Amino acid sequence: MANSKSLMLFSGRGYPELADEVGKHLDVTVTPQDAYEFANGEIFVRYKESVRGSDAFVIQSCGAGINTWVMETLIMIDALKRASAKRITVVLPFYPYARQDKKHRGREPISARLMADLLKTAGAHRLMCVDLHTDQIQGFFDGPVDHLMAAPLLSDYVLAHYGSERLTVVSPDSGRVRTAERWADRLGGTPLAFIHKTRDPLKPNEVVANRVVGDVAGRTCIIVDDMIDTGGTIASAAAEVLAAGAATVVVAATHGVLSDPAAERLSACGVSEVVLTNTLPIPPEHRFGCLTVLSIAPILARAIHEVFEDGSVTSLFEN
Amino acid sequence: MANSKSLMLFSGRGYPELADEVGKHLDVTVTPQDAYEFANGEIFVRYKESVRGSDAFVIQSCGAGINTWVMETLIMIDALKRASAKRITVVLPFYPYARQDKKHRGREPISARLMADLLKTAGAHRLMCVDLHTDQIQGFFDGPVDHLMAAPLLSDYVLAHYGSERLTVVSPDSGRVRTAERWADRLGGTPLAFIHKTRDPLKPNEVVANRVVGDVAGRTCIIVDDMIDTGGTIASAAAEVLAAGAATVVVAATHGVLSDPAAERLSACGVSEVVLTNTLPIPPEHRFGCLTVLSIAPILARAIHEVFEDGSVTSLFEN
Amino acid sequence: MANSKSLMLFSGRGYPELADEVGKHLDVTVTPQDAYEFANGEIFVRYKESVRGSDAFVIQSCGAGINTWVMETLIMIDALKRASAKRITVVLPFYPYARQDKKHRGREPISARLMADLLKTAGAHRLMCVDLHTDQIQGFFDGPVDHLMAAPLLSDYVLAHYGSERLTVVSPDSGRVRTAERWADRLGGTPLAFIHKTRDPLKPNEVVANRVVGDVAGRTCIIVDDMIDTGGTIASAAAEVLAAGAATVVVAATHGVLSDPAAERLSACGVSEVVLTNTLPIPPEHRFGCLTVLSIAPILARAIHEVFEDGSVTSLFEN
Amino acid sequence: MANSKSLMLFSGRGYPELADEVGKHLDVTVTPQDAYEFANGEIFVRYKESVRGSDAFVIQSCGAGINTWVMETLIMIDALKRASAKRITVVLPFYPYARQDKKHRGREPISARLMADLLKTAGAHRLMCVDLHTDQIQGFFDGPVDHLMAAPLLSDYVLAHYGSERLTVVSPDSGRVRTAERWADRLGGTPLAFIHKTRDPLKPNEVVANRVVGDVAGRTCIIVDDMIDTGGTIASAAAEVLAAGAATVVVAATHGVLSDPAAERLSACGVSEVVLTNTLPIPPEHRFGCLTVLSIAPILARAIHEVFEDGSVTSLFEN
Amino acid sequence: MANSKSLMLFSGRGYPELADEVGKHLDVTVTPQDAYEFANGEIFVRYKESVRGSDAFVIQSCGAGINTWVMETLIMIDALKRASAKRITVVLPFYPYARQDKKHRGREPISARLMADLLKTAGAHRLMCVDLHTDQIQGFFDGPVDHLMAAPLLSDYVLAHYGSERLTVVSPDSGRVRTAERWADRLGGTPLAFIHKTRDPLKPNEVVANRVVGDVAGRTCIIVDDMIDTGGTIASAAAEVLAAGAATVVVAATHGVLSDPAAERLSACGVSEVVLTNTLPIPPEHRFGCLTVLSIAPILARAIHEVFEDGSVTSLFEN
Amino acid sequence: MANSKSLMLFSGRGYPELADEVGKHLDVTVTPQDAYEFANGEIFVRYKESVRGSDAFVIQSCGAGINTWVMETLIMIDALKRASAKRITVVLPFYPYARQDKKHRGREPISARLMADLLKTAGAHRLMCVDLHTDQIQGFFDGPVDHLMAAPLLSDYVLAHYGSERLTVVSPDSGRVRTAERWADRLGGTPLAFIHKTRDPLKPNEVVANRVVGDVAGRTCIIVDDMIDTGGTIASAAAEVLAAGAATVVVAATHGVLSDPAAERLSACGVSEVVLTNTLPIPPEHRFGCLTVLSIAPILARAIHEVFEDGSVTSLFEN
Repeated sequence: MANSKSLMLFSGRGYPELADEVGKHLDVTVTPQDAYEFANGEIFVRYKESVRGSDAFVIQSCGAGINTWVMETLIMIDALKRASAKRITVVLPFYPYARQDKKHRGREPISARLMADLLKTAGAHRLMCVDLHTDQIQGFFDGPVDHLMAAPLLSDYVLAHYGSERLTVVSPDSGRVRTAERWADRLGGTPLAFIHKTRDPLKPNEVVANRVVGDVAGRTCIIVDDMIDTGGTIASAAAEVLAAGAATVVVAATHGVLSDPAAERLSACGVSEVVLTNTLPIPPEHRFGCLTVLSIAPILARAIHEVFEDGSVTSLFEN
Repeated sequence: MANSKSLMLFSGRGYPELADEVGKHLDVTVTPQDAYEFANGEIFVRYKESVRGSDAFVIQSCGAGINTWVMETLIMIDALKRASAKRITVVLPFYPYARQDKKHRGREPISARLMADLLKTAGAHRLMCVDLHTDQIQGFFDGPVDHLMAAPLLSDYVLAHYGSERLTVVSPDSGRVRTAERWADRLGGTPLAFIHKTRDPLKPNEVVANRVVGDVAGRTCIIVDDMIDTGGTIASAAAEVLAAGAATVVVAATHGVLSDPAAERLSACGVSEVVLTNTLPIPPEHRFGCLTVLSIAPILARAIHEVFEDGSVTSLFEN
Repeated sequence: MANSKSLMLFSGRGYPELADEVGKHLDVTVTPQDAYEFANGEIFVRYKESVRGSDAFVIQSCGAGINTWVMETLIMIDALKRASAKRITVVLPFYPYARQDKKHRGREPISARLMADLLKTAGAHRLMCVDLHTDQIQGFFDGPVDHLMAAPLLSDYVLAHYGSERLTVVSPDSGRVRTAERWADRLGGTPLAFIHKTRDPLKPNEVVANRVVGDVAGRTCIIVDDMIDTGGTIASAAAEVLAAGAATVVVAATHGVLSDPAAERLSACGVSEVVLTNTLPIPPEHRFGCLTVLSIAPILARAIHEVFEDGSVTSLFEN
Repeated sequence: MANSKSLMLFSGRGYPELADEVGKHLDVTVTPQDAYEFANGEIFVRYKESVRGSDAFVIQSCGAGINTWVMETLIMIDALKRASAKRITVVLPFYPYARQDKKHRGREPISARLMADLLKTAGAHRLMCVDLHTDQIQGFFDGPVDHLMAAPLLSDYVLAHYGSERLTVVSPDSGRVRTAERWADRLGGTPLAFIHKTRDPLKPNEVVANRVVGDVAGRTCIIVDDMIDTGGTIASAAAEVLAAGAATVVVAATHGVLSDPAAERLSACGVSEVVLTNTLPIPPEHRFGCLTVLSIAPILARAIHEVFEDGSVTSLFEN
Repeated sequence: MANSKSLMLFSGRGYPELADEVGKHLDVTVTPQDAYEFANGEIFVRYKESVRGSDAFVIQSCGAGINTWVMETLIMIDALKRASAKRITVVLPFYPYARQDKKHRGREPISARLMADLLKTAGAHRLMCVDLHTDQIQGFFDGPVDHLMAAPLLSDYVLAHYGSERLTVVSPDSGRVRTAERWADRLGGTPLAFIHKTRDPLKPNEVVANRVVGDVAGRTCIIVDDMIDTGGTIASAAAEVLAAGAATVVVAATHGVLSDPAAERLSACGVSEVVLTNTLPIPPEHRFGCLTVLSIAPILARAIHEVFEDGSVTSLFEN
Repeated sequence: MANSKSLMLFSGRGYPELADEVGKHLDVTVTPQDAYEFANGEIFVRYKESVRGSDAFVIQSCGAGINTWVMETLIMIDALKRASAKRITVVLPFYPYARQDKKHRGREPISARLMADLLKTAGAHRLMCVDLHTDQIQGFFDGPVDHLMAAPLLSDYVLAHYGSERLTVVSPDSGRVRTAERWADRLGGTPLAFIHKTRDPLKPNEVVANRVVGDVAGRTCIIVDDMIDTGGTIASAAAEVLAAGAATVVVAATHGVLSDPAAERLSACGVSEVVLTNTLPIPPEHRFGCLTVLSIAPILARAIHEVFEDGSVTSLFEN
């Protein structure tokens, strides 16, 4: 009969294992599709089953080769729109171009807003993301955005493994102190520290000196961030807090971009453990000894379930 | 002859003295208009001169009674659009609803994005603002935004009056440390501090304790922020740094919202001076002894001049 | 199970009693929310329950402080949109800025169209209004508008109380004669009259003289209008028809804006009764002796019921 | 050199003589084009000269065969847009579907709004019209509308020919009394009358009886309206005022739609003269003895000139 | 109860018999409506039953008087949108202006794209069409387009009647060879031919000579095309292949536009049979002896059924 | 002084040499910029000079790594829009995803339309392209598209080198016969041939057999196409015509995509010469012995000049 809504899962080729894992939690099979690139790199997608009237969730992890995955996502949305999917929710665990969320100087793009507009133009009705680089990115999309948080997952892990030590939460730079403050609350009210970078105002982006502000000596320092790309900021922060007398350094972040030479840097910078989630695929060659990866799939699955059933996503992260 | 572009200035009733001051710098008279409210509060605006083909700049300061000024701005834009102004630039020295730039919790609006969309819908082609609460707000508007900065004006004043003292820049909370860091660079590389607020994660928005992180004892502390509304955060931060041994406290901020009881709080909290700009009107009853107000009009005038002449606004803030 | 549609009522702070009354008729409780103004007047709204997937009806009466209520409505819509309400119907018993539905002269706004566009931009899918100032306003909104009529309610009252007298329907000015004609039909075919205002074409808006056109001597005159603001037009019309020999004067109008000095004027102008509906709140200080207020809530409730159930709103006003 | 704006005139096939007349006043030749219909009625248009960068004015009179002219206008706009015209102003002396400017009953279209949206979608930047059926139609278009008035032209004629007689301005129905009132002012403060039509509220659109309200006996009655279609309303009004003792009846209206049997009716109904403008073509077979047609071309030409030169159109109608 | 979706059929006046036939297949009665033209040609439409919440299918055949039918379709959509239809699917068996799907030369419109945008603007959510002139027209509409094919219907007929003969599929010009190739496959792998038209590149659209390319001598030639308008191309192609020795000529096309003098030409050009569908009405005066018309109604009905039930339209044409 | 329009050239990193060559013809230097990729592939662009008020032309060749170049183009447009460029023309000599200009089967995207919408969303006002895969793609963009043609360049070359031989123009498949026909006209009225591919209608895209239709024996065959990707179609067509007795085979095409193994195939398939233009970069490893590359830069430069000066692009290809 008409009008019985059906949930359908679609997966980009950026990280199909994650979509499969989400599907298992939801007891839904990812819809089979033909997806490949022509010789010149143009992407082709075709769904093998009717999607008409479906409540479609497109899961895509935009890791390395990010522009290919963005374009594939847009093309997948277009195909769904033209094939009469009823509602299209795009699940981007890692929001691409999130760092370019403002003009740092004149004549720059605001690529994070551009991404939101491109997704809308292609036909996305709503977005679901994990730990946006800044919360304001929610406002870039003209429609509902379900903003999931990995912090409970990560902080529970940290509490379970380091909860008995004397902790300090450390922000690796001045722009993440608010995030670190929230972590400090979650960990039961720990002290807070951050790395103060001195710049020459006449030479943009050139750091002159780093300095730890806050109490780290003899403590287990939890450096927190939303993403680790090449690991430079994190490794440098680890070095600073160790130089300032930290006893142990643990790193917790949501998105493991881990571009080269992140693995090398992180395994060499003296940290005891790096805890990430799998919002992005982490291939074997980017893994390293002290890396722990927690799965984000259960959270995605629960949120998709709530969206499909018109439940509350907010409630997943309260209390 | 056709096509010689003409700059026209329009002023909302929120703070006409500022528009007049800008006009004097540009040698342009504010276009005369009829603007008033009907008995039930509905606003009426009509321009007394033809605006056809003009390069229109609408200046509005959204101080107390903010919804009235927002609505008046939208109505002024609509009237310009329908009267065939060629280009409409809205100059909002203080961007209304900037603090609601994200959903702090579920089921909240993102009013700062809404404002951008309303302005666009009414017919605004471009915006000009001073010190947006967060830089990401630039990305909320679908078009060019000229983001002016009061920091050079304010920091020059601070350097001129306190440059010889041992300064520490203080962020009044964890979310403004990045801004404070930029101030520290501008002031020649001073130390940095911030107020760490401890919250109970189960009780949103309830602060349990404050704590100064960073070195303030015996120093002249410059507390910096983008705006001062009721003065609670600033007064509390001043008390904290004084309790932590600060020698002197100076406050510098761009936007003087100064809602009650700001004047009372700021004059009683032990700060030596509060330096603001006049992006918003500050009526006599909201002024207090140690308040210094610097005029933003020259910066607005230069930026409008650059926009009109297709020059570079970016260059105003470089070097 | 998914997809069972749920009706949710939301109320602006303009006149919560009306929303409550509507809710009682529908057996639906108004959704609890946090709504308040920050010190500088910025409005904040947050819903206390999940609204995901709901068929949302936002009721707002835009009385005194009209710009605040318009802005609150827009913000409420934005919050619903971002919280995934399925459909958003805005119920504005009194359409704000309806009188500015055209350019009376050059370089004026068309604020009534602007309101429609602002509501659409914020996320409204449909509107419900009572007795729009002109029917054309329906065409300002790009979507369905349910246009309810208070005339049956008001004319039934008039017939019940004055039906046995010799009635003449009077339009208070030349622009409302069509409306008066419809009333005359409803009241069983009474004569018609209107007030002819003579203006000097060189002095816009300045009335030189008034004159009653039509037969009023010795009759019970029913002056009809869509709204009464300051009461000037109505009081003047009442004086004119009384001077022309009317036996009794009764005033019937839908919207009681009743800005000062309406209460004073209406109680002093010689009319026997003023019959209004409660599309707008009428505070005690604006009430007066001969005022009768009929409740619009049953009509709103029935229309909301029809919209929710995909029934016919048109049929409510036929037959 | 680039950027010297050029005015180009384009004419639909609805009434090319009017465009030529406008062109002569402006000293601009209508741009040559190929325009014809394929065998199945599909319209084809192609301009014979480059229109790139031009300030294009498309003049179309939508007389008989109105849907063909509307479609041709849309196609002409599309061709201009795709050929890089800089600005496209559509000059519709008679706005098509203006009478369907609201839903008279449920489940009707609002075709006048639809027309505005279609023009916008095709690429029109602005409209120019003469005497819109209701002023609110201005608000249907999302952009500037120059609303020209034929009243000065027509009333000057009436004053010149009938100014010495005892005039009464008559509205042919209750919906045009406001317009008649403005005419009465223009003619120096004459009395006013209108035809009251009694309807059975249970039978929509069925008139039961007509009645003259106002003073017409022994006077020269000027019946005014915006358009004359089949002439039924006007002829009936003329009969009513003559029956009520009018000495002479003159009809003045802007748009001579004159569908059959208008010519027959108007020449037989006892009026002395019918004064119209040529916003629409009036073919010989629709003309009749007492018809006078005044040319609207000089007003269109002056308005186009003002628009092109960024002058003031409003000033054309302010004395 | 709310939310049980209802299918409603609406028919333009272009070919109501087709809509009735579709309705019979679906067991759905076409919704009664008032639809007529005012004296000046303006179209009026009003539905006689509530359409609120319906899944509306508007069927319109745009035959002779095509602009009237296009406009009527747009007005019908507008009325549905404003009357709260839930989803509006426009069924245009023959897509109007399909041949103007590109700029053949500079300064031409792309009317086929314009049609798509007009339909969208009026409120169409989706389109359903049969054999678009070029497949790319699907991409002109911003939404789902169900593109039905008459080829199975036509080729089954040809196989049943001519399958035992030695067939060659002939494209009447160089632009339809791809279509002919698909026909050749459907008919079991026949040879292919086309008419090569030689043009003088300096004189656009002027054909110098025709020449058959491919093997036609002694064979039964099936000339295939998407539409037959005046029949000139087809008649000329028939003459060419007969001159080149074809034994028999049969014409198969989807759309019978059949503008004058198509009937005359086709009955005189030597073809044995012309097979068309009834996507357009073919009035008696346009019929001729060897014409066979197959009904498209069953295909339309099945596709509407699939769309309503969220089934698969694609599957109707696979296998 | 304001308003003197300035032409600025911008170049994507896809093929900067082409932009430089165009710039030399125009005597305009490509605007310097910072453009690079972050470690995870995110693209960053910043212009080093003010672009405010400029008439901006962004040249990008989307060769290998096509998704990167598309994304870079979008980001460049966004940066120009936000930096107040006055008009943004995107010059894409090779339109990306042009082959996916329709749904070949159900549930496919129409990526060519998607590209047009993405460019529009980012801020492009107009497009300039060379030899679109199908002309209908012009209609995908909502704005002016200047469609340049390489045919004059290529056919002049062929005439100069092979004009004295007995030529046949060959379309490599049934979908390009129209293009081949135009070539035949340009070359003075040569015969035409094409390759007929037989498919099994039950197995989409599987070719059963090829067959040359038309006269090729003993002739110099010019195989024409819009692009050569992997060379499979062309090499196969060459083999077919040689097998059918062609004396010589020359290939002419506009876009040299030349994905592997095009170079190998084309150099081994027996053709005498392959003539291409440089709409795409052809790196040394993709070149081969019989390849001739003609520069498209002069045509681009002339078209940009005409667009900037409001001249006629159409006239470049007439005569």
